[in-house]
Amino acid sequence: MSDSGGYVSTGEFKRDASYIPDRITKDGRRPEHGPVEGDLWPVEPGRYRLVAAKACPWATRAIIVRQLLGLEDVISLGTPGPTHDERSWTFDLDPGGVDPVLGIERIQQAYLARFPDYPKGITVPVVVDVPTGQVVTNDFPWITHDLFFEWREHQRADAPDLWPADLREEMEEVMQRVYTEVNNGVYRCGFAGSQEAYDAAYDRLWTALDWLEDRLSTRRYLMGDAITEADVRLWTTLARFDAVYHGHFKCNRQKLTELPNLWGYARELYAIPAFGDNTDFEQIKKHYYVVHKDLNPTQIVPDGPDPAVWLEPHGRS
Amino acid sequence: MSDSGGYVSTGEFKRDASYIPDRITKDGRRPEHGPVEGDLWPVEPGRYRLVAAKACPWATRAIIVRQLLGLEDVISLGTPGPTHDERSWTFDLDPGGVDPVLGIERIQQAYLARFPDYPKGITVPVVVDVPTGQVVTNDFPWITHDLFFEWREHQRADAPDLWPADLREEMEEVMQRVYTEVNNGVYRCGFAGSQEAYDAAYDRLWTALDWLEDRLSTRRYLMGDAITEADVRLWTTLARFDAVYHGHFKCNRQKLTELPNLWGYARELYAIPAFGDNTDFEQIKKHYYVVHKDLNPTQIVPDGPDPAVWLEPHGRS
Repeated sequence: MSDSGGYVSTGEFKRDASYIPDRITKDGRRPEHGPVEGDLWPVEPGRYRLVAAKACPWATRAIIVRQLLGLEDVISLGTPGPTHDERSWTFDLDPGGVDPVLGIERIQQAYLARFPDYPKGITVPVVVDVPTGQVVTNDFPWITHDLFFEWREHQRADAPDLWPADLREEMEEVMQRVYTEVNNGVYRCGFAGSQEAYDAAYDRLWTALDWLEDRLSTRRYLMGDAITEADVRLWTTLARFDAVYHGHFKCNRQKLTELPNLWGYARELYAIPAFGDNTDFEQIKKHYYVVHKDLNPTQIVPDGPDPAVWLEPHGRS
Repeated sequence: MSDSGGYVSTGEFKRDASYIPDRITKDGRRPEHGPVEGDLWPVEPGRYRLVAAKACPWATRAIIVRQLLGLEDVISLGTPGPTHDERSWTFDLDPGGVDPVLGIERIQQAYLARFPDYPKGITVPVVVDVPTGQVVTNDFPWITHDLFFEWREHQRADAPDLWPADLREEMEEVMQRVYTEVNNGVYRCGFAGSQEAYDAAYDRLWTALDWLEDRLSTRRYLMGDAITEADVRLWTTLARFDAVYHGHFKCNRQKLTELPNLWGYARELYAIPAFGDNTDFEQIKKHYYVVHKDLNPTQIVPDGPDPAVWLEPHGRS
């Protein structure tokens, strides 16, 4: 995602949440869950490219779910570098600064290939139709949802059940609270336009983190004994917490390392390749500290925290 | 102090260290130690006012030493508020915004009363001659030194020996390293003018903090079994570390709370009234986050960290 959004009169940051609502479904059928507000595209191995920056928490969700489900060979991955300007994320980490499959320098080009006057934010994650080079969808909650529900026959045999049917109702409630209070809650602190808005955002964030710390005192994962999509969604904020949100966004009541249940839980997730392999603390720090020049005018990137603590035993088994 | 200073060509911050070198000595005699580069003023109970902001680490040294030695009744204390502009610290916390003894709104007035064209930084701590309203000295290392050596007959009977003669040589070495590497080291990180200067400053700071962490593994205080001036000088940086330097100055390899010996040592000092009473985390945070608008353009002051941890048992006895 990019950090587009605005302020309401109290100085509170509101995320601009308007995306391309297309979905990719088995045979282009009507999906099992959720709205159909755009086009339907058929699942087809090798046809689509997920473009997702490892710096971005919203994008990293999709990278993790793709790997958890074993979809690496059927949906390729393009990874823009950690920084971007107002025109969008760029493929500056790739040879020649060009994505090797899409042949473009900026993900903006795939948006404009489909919508020449695209008026909304150029965001990641985004799924691109490789044959036409056009964006399909950047509607991130449905991207990961549909990787699970619509691509089943291409997933690895022992893929985890990320959306257990009997937990779905509770899971939606938990994910909604995580989204508004934690995933977005850290941004509400960092982008607060006044001391009052920040103070309110800080209290709201820590109320949610206290709830999660308590919840994880009796559950190994957010929904119980097994990993679900809810864990992926919480993880991407936790992974960035001490490296960025604690200092840069002033979410500093405690570090994640000072919250025993959340910290043990986070280390357990970090040890899983889909989570740990896709957590690049250097890219994460560079993204926030360089892009948000209004918060960090020097654009100097902190050398801490020491990431060695992530490898300490988590003691959650 | 104020944060006046400049940059050398590498982007490294250099503190402007030029002060009024006058000293206050017993009977105005030549002092036992140190240079005589300005006037000599006689020790005289009730004559002088120490002006020192609790937000400022250099100023707080003097407040702590005054209280450790029991000099509160012979040298009065004026305390400017936590923020200042380019013209100087102000008495905005006092009724009417006026220091009740000196009758001035800004400490700059006491500087100009003596030197109408004073060309250097308006800093705290500063000692003011109450009858004339003129500054005597702002040469902070000698202010605390002379409170100990020159005001002996006015100190409380059980005042600690802050400068043990047999340790003086080693103590000077330790204090010099603490001054250049830690007290100033955090500013070198925060005010670095380039990523390279910051990286070098960060490594230099943590080399020194590792040395102190190791030193305190075998010593209760910096110089052994008793508190000395060296502890006061280190303390004022430690007290600000997690509240300000960790995030605002990017000194974030670890929090102080993650360095077991330094953290236990700091909590032991915090429990001593001269240290704990004069540590005002709200003023400290407000000072740095509001005054350094170039580092924190929003001037929003973080609500964390939770100060309750300072009251946990230190286990150093």
